[in-house]
Amino acid sequence: MHNLDSPIQKEAISIVKIGGDVVDNPVSLESFLSDFQKLEGKKILVHGGGVMASKMAIDLGIKTTMIQGRRVTDAETLKLVTMVYAGWINKRIVALLQKNGCNAIGLSGADANIIPANKRSPYPIDYGYVGDPLPGKVNTGFLSNLLNNDIVPVFCAITHDENGSLLNTNADTIAYTLSVALSSLFKTTLLYCFEKEGVLRDVNNPNSLILSMTKSEYKEYLDQNIIAGGMIPKLHNSFNAIDEGVSEVLIMHADNLLNQKGTRLISENGE
Amino acid sequence: MHNLDSPIQKEAISIVKIGGDVVDNPVSLESFLSDFQKLEGKKILVHGGGVMASKMAIDLGIKTTMIQGRRVTDAETLKLVTMVYAGWINKRIVALLQKNGCNAIGLSGADANIIPANKRSPYPIDYGYVGDPLPGKVNTGFLSNLLNNDIVPVFCAITHDENGSLLNTNADTIAYTLSVALSSLFKTTLLYCFEKEGVLRDVNNPNSLILSMTKSEYKEYLDQNIIAGGMIPKLHNSFNAIDEGVSEVLIMHADNLLNQKGTRLISENGE
Repeated sequence: MHNLDSPIQKEAISIVKIGGDVVDNPVSLESFLSDFQKLEGKKILVHGGGVMASKMAIDLGIKTTMIQGRRVTDAETLKLVTMVYAGWINKRIVALLQKNGCNAIGLSGADANIIPANKRSPYPIDYGYVGDPLPGKVNTGFLSNLLNNDIVPVFCAITHDENGSLLNTNADTIAYTLSVALSSLFKTTLLYCFEKEGVLRDVNNPNSLILSMTKSEYKEYLDQNIIAGGMIPKLHNSFNAIDEGVSEVLIMHADNLLNQKGTRLISENGE
Repeated sequence: MHNLDSPIQKEAISIVKIGGDVVDNPVSLESFLSDFQKLEGKKILVHGGGVMASKMAIDLGIKTTMIQGRRVTDAETLKLVTMVYAGWINKRIVALLQKNGCNAIGLSGADANIIPANKRSPYPIDYGYVGDPLPGKVNTGFLSNLLNNDIVPVFCAITHDENGSLLNTNADTIAYTLSVALSSLFKTTLLYCFEKEGVLRDVNNPNSLILSMTKSEYKEYLDQNIIAGGMIPKLHNSFNAIDEGVSEVLIMHADNLLNQKGTRLISENGE
């Protein structure tokens, strides 16, 4: 609910992240983009591409090293992921959106210096050319200029260090960073789309979807071991985003973008 | 010389094209970009990348087919050139320019629908996914918006057909198209940078550089067989650009960008 006493009502924006599984399947991707196109209001798309990058690494004989589920990015791998994410996937998405009149522009974080990042420290684990962006350094002026001209930014998960090096960056983190940065200018909703219905009470039962969750409810679920594994960092970052000014975060299946059925993460007072 | 009676003096813009040889050599590229950064006034960079694409094709086992010096672009080759041109080369150039504070943005013709193109007819020769852009369809409004915000567009040689397909496009043609399209808004200079000094009277004598040429002088050189081979289409397109409103075209070595020593193509009245 909007606070009726609010002096200025901010315009809404949706920041939508899709993962590598949707991107890798041409049918899923076209169906998703058709839905994304219909999403009303200002919007930004952030895409992954790890599945395709891993396939291409095999074709090129480049060894993929993962530590704790994250790709180690040496110089060859940086070139590979930049080609796959910023090249083929990003421009293909732009061309498909343009086909139906959605005025998309494909961007990396290096373009117009929109998302500068710090190269991650090699201690305790050296992930190589990997970037950690800071919401406070996002070029929101240029982004607003694009959005106010009805242009739809499409971001791949590549940033740069402002010192000449591109950096491989987690796509969830890009979506988080943009959402937090834009929350001072817009009423921001962050939508994480993936291949599951949302957060489930029982991972084996798709009917056990948790429809909404506050941070204190999240902590209770954690204590009860209802939430575990890979969902923990996603929820942790999502509640951080809400603490930093994002209005709400939705975690949902890519097929549900328009009906927005999924798990809705909201601030403690429900706003 | 400017016409003093001109009611409104247009602002100048330089549209600089560099070829695949400069792009493929890290030392040449960094040196060139350092010069490009120092070039005063509004500017756009257009880059090739064919040398790197041909190398990557070998690594991926993709056969390169050339007909009359032009690449045949099947579906696999389109993916390859989009990865190499729009991905690695384009974003690497952007990161290197950003390093020294030049606010570059990397673009394909699909982005913000800046350069729509027609897929070339398969008759008499089927070049596959190859695009021929039309200057009249360039999105000059969005480009002007970028330029007026002191952003430097960096274009790779990829366009789209507005129907969901990306198209491989000759980089010289991209530079020509942008120059002609922008000549209604700006006093436009088109600079073709490559590995030779310019147009030579004697290809074996680097001291035989022709410093300037009008279209009628060009025709005389043609009649005298002074100009031949690959230089003919470049000059033909350059004089077309001048006929379409571009102020001048320079053909020169990439090392001479700042002193602008090369062959200067000008309109018949020298303006």
